[in-house]
Amino acid sequence: MLIVMHAEASEDQIRRVCDTIAELGYTARPMPGKQRTTVGLVGNDGRVDGSRFEALPGVAEVIHVSKPYKQVSWEWRAEPTIVKLPGGLAIGGESVVVMAGPCSVESESQILAAAEAVRSAGATVLRAGAFKPRSSPYSFQGLGGEGLRLLALARERTGLLIVTEAMDPEGADLVAEVADIIQVGARNMQNYSLLKKVGRLGKPVLLKRGLSATIQELLLSAEYILAEGNPNVILCERGVRGFDSATRNLFDLSAIPVVKSLSHLPIVADPSHGTGHREMVTPMARAAVAAGADGLLVEVHPAPDRALSDGAQSLYPEQFARLMKETRLIAEAIGRRIAQPAGVPA
Amino acid sequence: MLIVMHAEASEDQIRRVCDTIAELGYTARPMPGKQRTTVGLVGNDGRVDGSRFEALPGVAEVIHVSKPYKQVSWEWRAEPTIVKLPGGLAIGGESVVVMAGPCSVESESQILAAAEAVRSAGATVLRAGAFKPRSSPYSFQGLGGEGLRLLALARERTGLLIVTEAMDPEGADLVAEVADIIQVGARNMQNYSLLKKVGRLGKPVLLKRGLSATIQELLLSAEYILAEGNPNVILCERGVRGFDSATRNLFDLSAIPVVKSLSHLPIVADPSHGTGHREMVTPMARAAVAAGADGLLVEVHPAPDRALSDGAQSLYPEQFARLMKETRLIAEAIGRRIAQPAGVPA
Amino acid sequence: MLIVMHAEASEDQIRRVCDTIAELGYTARPMPGKQRTTVGLVGNDGRVDGSRFEALPGVAEVIHVSKPYKQVSWEWRAEPTIVKLPGGLAIGGESVVVMAGPCSVESESQILAAAEAVRSAGATVLRAGAFKPRSSPYSFQGLGGEGLRLLALARERTGLLIVTEAMDPEGADLVAEVADIIQVGARNMQNYSLLKKVGRLGKPVLLKRGLSATIQELLLSAEYILAEGNPNVILCERGVRGFDSATRNLFDLSAIPVVKSLSHLPIVADPSHGTGHREMVTPMARAAVAAGADGLLVEVHPAPDRALSDGAQSLYPEQFARLMKETRLIAEAIGRRIAQPAGVPA
Amino acid sequence: MLIVMHAEASEDQIRRVCDTIAELGYTARPMPGKQRTTVGLVGNDGRVDGSRFEALPGVAEVIHVSKPYKQVSWEWRAEPTIVKLPGGLAIGGESVVVMAGPCSVESESQILAAAEAVRSAGATVLRAGAFKPRSSPYSFQGLGGEGLRLLALARERTGLLIVTEAMDPEGADLVAEVADIIQVGARNMQNYSLLKKVGRLGKPVLLKRGLSATIQELLLSAEYILAEGNPNVILCERGVRGFDSATRNLFDLSAIPVVKSLSHLPIVADPSHGTGHREMVTPMARAAVAAGADGLLVEVHPAPDRALSDGAQSLYPEQFARLMKETRLIAEAIGRRIAQPAGVPA
Repeated sequence: MLIVMHAEASEDQIRRVCDTIAELGYTARPMPGKQRTTVGLVGNDGRVDGSRFEALPGVAEVIHVSKPYKQVSWEWRAEPTIVKLPGGLAIGGESVVVMAGPCSVESESQILAAAEAVRSAGATVLRAGAFKPRSSPYSFQGLGGEGLRLLALARERTGLLIVTEAMDPEGADLVAEVADIIQVGARNMQNYSLLKKVGRLGKPVLLKRGLSATIQELLLSAEYILAEGNPNVILCERGVRGFDSATRNLFDLSAIPVVKSLSHLPIVADPSHGTGHREMVTPMARAAVAAGADGLLVEVHPAPDRALSDGAQSLYPEQFARLMKETRLIAEAIGRRIAQPAGVPA
Repeated sequence: MLIVMHAEASEDQIRRVCDTIAELGYTARPMPGKQRTTVGLVGNDGRVDGSRFEALPGVAEVIHVSKPYKQVSWEWRAEPTIVKLPGGLAIGGESVVVMAGPCSVESESQILAAAEAVRSAGATVLRAGAFKPRSSPYSFQGLGGEGLRLLALARERTGLLIVTEAMDPEGADLVAEVADIIQVGARNMQNYSLLKKVGRLGKPVLLKRGLSATIQELLLSAEYILAEGNPNVILCERGVRGFDSATRNLFDLSAIPVVKSLSHLPIVADPSHGTGHREMVTPMARAAVAAGADGLLVEVHPAPDRALSDGAQSLYPEQFARLMKETRLIAEAIGRRIAQPAGVPA
Repeated sequence: MLIVMHAEASEDQIRRVCDTIAELGYTARPMPGKQRTTVGLVGNDGRVDGSRFEALPGVAEVIHVSKPYKQVSWEWRAEPTIVKLPGGLAIGGESVVVMAGPCSVESESQILAAAEAVRSAGATVLRAGAFKPRSSPYSFQGLGGEGLRLLALARERTGLLIVTEAMDPEGADLVAEVADIIQVGARNMQNYSLLKKVGRLGKPVLLKRGLSATIQELLLSAEYILAEGNPNVILCERGVRGFDSATRNLFDLSAIPVVKSLSHLPIVADPSHGTGHREMVTPMARAAVAAGADGLLVEVHPAPDRALSDGAQSLYPEQFARLMKETRLIAEAIGRRIAQPAGVPA
Repeated sequence: MLIVMHAEASEDQIRRVCDTIAELGYTARPMPGKQRTTVGLVGNDGRVDGSRFEALPGVAEVIHVSKPYKQVSWEWRAEPTIVKLPGGLAIGGESVVVMAGPCSVESESQILAAAEAVRSAGATVLRAGAFKPRSSPYSFQGLGGEGLRLLALARERTGLLIVTEAMDPEGADLVAEVADIIQVGARNMQNYSLLKKVGRLGKPVLLKRGLSATIQELLLSAEYILAEGNPNVILCERGVRGFDSATRNLFDLSAIPVVKSLSHLPIVADPSHGTGHREMVTPMARAAVAAGADGLLVEVHPAPDRALSDGAQSLYPEQFARLMKETRLIAEAIGRRIAQPAGVPA
C-alpha cells in the first residue's frame, strides 16, 4: 500500500502516517518526491483497510498495490481451475461448453421441447430458471419447485446437465438438490449471504458479473465462495450497464482476457443478456469464443414469440443450430473444440 | 405500449402483431407513418411483457408508455407519503431528518461516543451497521447480534432512533427487533427475497439506490415492498457508478426532483457514500437539502482515523456540527427546517 | 511516478526499469514489498510519459503521483482566480453570476425579448448561441454572423454582457469581436486547435466539461488555454453521460467541490443541460449554488414552445424569475450574494 | 414521432398538441390509452425537433420513431458501401483490411522500421499520427508536416497505403495531400467544422467513435460527411468510457452488429485503444473479426519501450505477426479473408 501525501503536508503529518503504520505492525518507507512524499507500507497481507490512512491529515490518496483477493489469483494457484461436471464434462479445459435453453421453465412441454432442440444442436447443459428475479413484482416469477422438478425430468430425458438460479440462501438448498451447476445471478453478485451459502454447498457455481461490477469486484465475490471451501466457480460475463440503448447491456468481452490474466478460474459468456437482441447473439457468441471464453450461455426457446420472459433475445431452435455450427468453426480456428454431448463421439 | 415496425415490414407481419394483441385480450391500433407503421396496444394494465412483441418478425422496437410500477406512483396516491416514526418524528413532511453515525458499530464506547456526538449536534436518528456487506471476505464484517444490542443501548441512552441494515431475510427478523428503520443496502436493491421479507415485516424501510439502478428500477424495488402491504418506504440516493475516480461514486442529486415528479415516496440523500471524501460531504449535504431531499444520511465517527471501515468519508464530530449549522440555514432558505431531537424546542 | 512490478518479476526486469529511469535523467528508488516490488521515479516534472514503463517486461502498472497539469493547480497559484469582466462584474469572487438566455439566437425580437426578461429578473450575462453544434446536420445550425450582430444589439439595449460559443478556430475570431466571454462547448472540450486559439485570443473563456470527461481531463483542457498565456478560464459543469434516460445528462454537482479542491479556477453550473427538463432546473440551480458554484448558466426563452432548439429545458420568463428569487436565498444562506446588474444597487 | 401525454393531461392540452402538429404541416393522430393519451405525428421527414412538443403543457415524453439520419441508413441505400482505395484495396467487401503502425511518427528510421514490420506481417495500410491530440499540452504533439513527409516516404518504400489523423479544418488540407484515408479521431467525432471539411475533401474518411457516443450519434456524425457529398466513410469502434480501470476503455464489440443492422457503411475495430494493454490486443482482434469487423486498426511499434506515446498498448513486431496469423484463421472460419498486400498472391 502506498500513501501519497499532499504537496503541502507537514513533517508532522508524514510522521503520523509512519507511526500509524508501525502501530499496525507493518514497516513504513517514506519516499520524498519532487512534488510530494509517498509513504510505502511494507508487509501488507491484504488485510489493511486503506480508509484509516485516508482519514489522516495531510494524506492525498491511498494506492493499493496488493490485490485484495487471494485464492482466486494466479499467485495462489498456478494451474487453471477445471470445473468437473457429471458425465465427464469439464469447464476450463480445452473444450468450450455450451449451455442453452429458455429464460424460464414455463411448462413440461416447453422445457422438454427446448431441451430436445438444444441437445440435438449440440449443447451439453440446459439452462432455464425456476426462480426468476424480475424487476417488477408483477412480472412472471417462475414456477419455483415445480420448475425444478421439470428440469430434473428434462435431464432424465436428454442427458443434458442442468444450470439454474438460486435467489436466496433457502432457495439454494432446493436448487442444489437438482442442479448440476447453481447459478448466482447478476443482481445477486454481491448478496454475500447467498455467496457464503453456495460456498458451503460445494456444488459448482456459475457466478454472473453484476451490472456495474468491476472485474476486481467479480473476483472478490468469487473469493467469498472459495473462502468457504468451494473451488468450483465459473465466472460469467453477461454485459454491464452502458449508456446506449441500442443494446440491452454493454457486452464487455475484454473481461475474458482480463480475467484470464488475473485468475485461474474459468469464464463463460452470455451473449443473450449481453446484447438483448436475437440477431446480435450469434456474431457475439462467435466473438466470445474467439476472445477465449470457456463456454457460452445462450437463450433458446421453442417459440420465442410465446415466451413469458426475454422473448426478444431468445433464439429460434434453427438459429441456435446455426450458432453452434459457426462457433464450432471459431473454436477450431483457435485450437479448441465445442464440448460434445455424452455418448456423441468428438 | 407501442410496437414500432421495421420500415420494410410486410402487411402480414403487421397483421400478426395485431392478432397477437387481440389474442392477449387488448385492442390493437395500427398507425401508418411516413417511414414505418406503429401499432398501439390499448388497455395495457402494466402486465403485458413487451418481449413477446419484440420476438415477432418485422418488429423494430417496443416502447412502453405505461409505467411498470403502480403503488409508488402519484396516480395511485395523490398525497405525499409521510413515514411516521416513534417519538413524533416523520420523514416526507416539512422537516428534514438527519440520520448520522459511524459506518459500523465497533464497540460500546465507540457507538455511545458517536451517538452522543451526533445527538448533541442535532441529529435525530443514529445510523450504524451491525451486519456489514463488504466487497472482500477478509474485511471487517460487523459485530452482528452484539452490534444490534449496542444500538439498542445507544437509543436508550440518547433517545435517538435507529436505522441499520439487514442483509438477508433471516437477518431482517433480528434487525426488526431493534431497528426503527430497516435499511436495505445498495448491493441488495434487487434482492427480491429480502424486499418481500421487509415488505411483510411492516417496519419503515430505507431503500438505497443500487450502484447502477435507474430511478425506474429503484421505484420497482420499492413497489415490491408496497406490494407486500408495507407503505413506509424511504428512498435513498447514495451515488451511482461513474467513470471518474475523483469521487467514490457519482452523486446523482437530480434523482431527488426526478423521484418527486414520479412518486409520492420520500427520498433522502447520503453525501458520505455519494462522494467518498470527507471534505466534500458538507457542500453536498447543503446541495441535497437545496435540491429538496427529505433527509440526510451522514457518516460521523468519534475518531475517523481509528475507524474499521469508511474512515475516509466519515466526518469528525466538529465537522458534523458545522454541517448541521449550514444545512439548517439552507433548509430555512427553502422554507423547511431540520427535524429537532425529541424534547428540544424547535 | 510509481512503477509497480508483477509479483513474479525478475531481478533483471527490475534493474531494467531502474536503468530506464536513470537514462531519462531521474532517480530510481526500488521498494521491495511483501507481494511485489514498486520502483519510485523521483524528480518527475510532469513530463514523463508512463507508457514507456508500461511497455517494459515485468511491469504490472504505472501509477501517477504527480498531477499532469500545472498552471491550473493550487500549487502554481495559491489565490483563487477571479475573472474580471467589463462593467465591474467578476466571476470567482464572493458574488454568484447568473448567465441566462435562449439556446440559440433566433431573431431580433426573440433575443431582445429574452434579454429584457432575464435582465429584469436579475441576470447579468446573456447566453445564446449564434453558431450551434447540433448532432444532426438537418437541425437548425444557428444564425452565424447575423446572430452575433443581434447579440451586440441586445447588449447595447440591456447592458447585459454576452457569452456565446465558438466552434472552430476561424469562428473564434468572429466570436471574439462581440463576446465578453467565449464559450467552448462540451463537444469541443478536447478540440485542442480551438483551445489553443482561444488561449491566444486572451478574452475570458467559459470551458464546458465534455460529456465523459474526468475532472482531470477538464483541468488539462483548461491548462491548454493557460499555457497559451490566457489565465481567464471559467469551468462549467453541465452534466455527463449517464445510464438513466430519466434525465438528459447526469448532473455531477460533486464536480464543484472536486474542482475547488484541485484548482484556483472558478466553476459555474448549467442545470438546463445538466437535467434537460424544465421542472428540474430550479431545484438543481439551488443545489448548485449550495454546493459552491460561482455562477449559473440557465436556458430561458420568451416562448419555449416556439423554440428552435432545447425547448424542453428552457424556462418561461416567470419560472426564471422564481429561480432567481430562490437561488438568491440560497446564496445568502452560505454567505454569498447574486451579482447585481450594473447600475442596480446591491 | 409520438407525443405521450401525462395521465392527467386535459382535453385542451391534447388539442394544443394536435394544433401545433397541424401548424407545422403534419397530421396528428391522437390515440387514447388506458392510462394516458398518445398523439402520433404522421409525415415526419426527420426535420421535426421534438423539444417543441416537450415544452407544451401536459406532455410527458416525446418518442422518436423515425431515425434522425438518412443517407447512412439502409433505407437510403440497400447495398453495403465498399470504400475503394488505391491499388485495388477495398473496405466493406469480403476482405478484412488490417491497418497497423505506431501511435505517432517519431523519426524516419522509426516509421520505416514500423512500416517494414507491418508490411511483412501482412498489413496493407500504415497507421501513424503526424498531428496528435493529447490530453496534456506538455505531451509530445506529433511531428506535424514533417511527419506527413515521412509517411509519404514510407508509402513509397513499402507500397502501404496511409491513414493519418486531421485535427482541424486547416490541418485537413495538409493531411489530404498525403493520406489515402483521413482519420477523424474520437475526441473530434462531434467537431462539426472538421466533419464538414472532410466531407468536402472527398477522400475516404475513417471516423472514430467518440468516447461516450451512442451508435446513433456516430451515424449522425457520418451523416455530416455524407451530406457534404462524400460517401466514403469507414466507421471505427475503439472503446467507450467505462467504469472499470482494468482496461483503458470499454471495447464495445456489439457496435459491429448494431452498425451492420442500421447502416450500409463499413466498420473496423481498434483493439489497441479498445483495451489499452498489449496482451489483450490479439484476443480482442480475433473477437472483432469474429463479430464481423471489416478491418482492424492495430498499434505496432518497432520498440514499444522507446515509444513517445501509447507504448503500453503497442505490439512488438513479432506479436503483430502472431496476431495476423490468428486473425487470418478466424476470418477464414467465417468465410472471409485478410486483404493481401498488393503484388502478393491471395
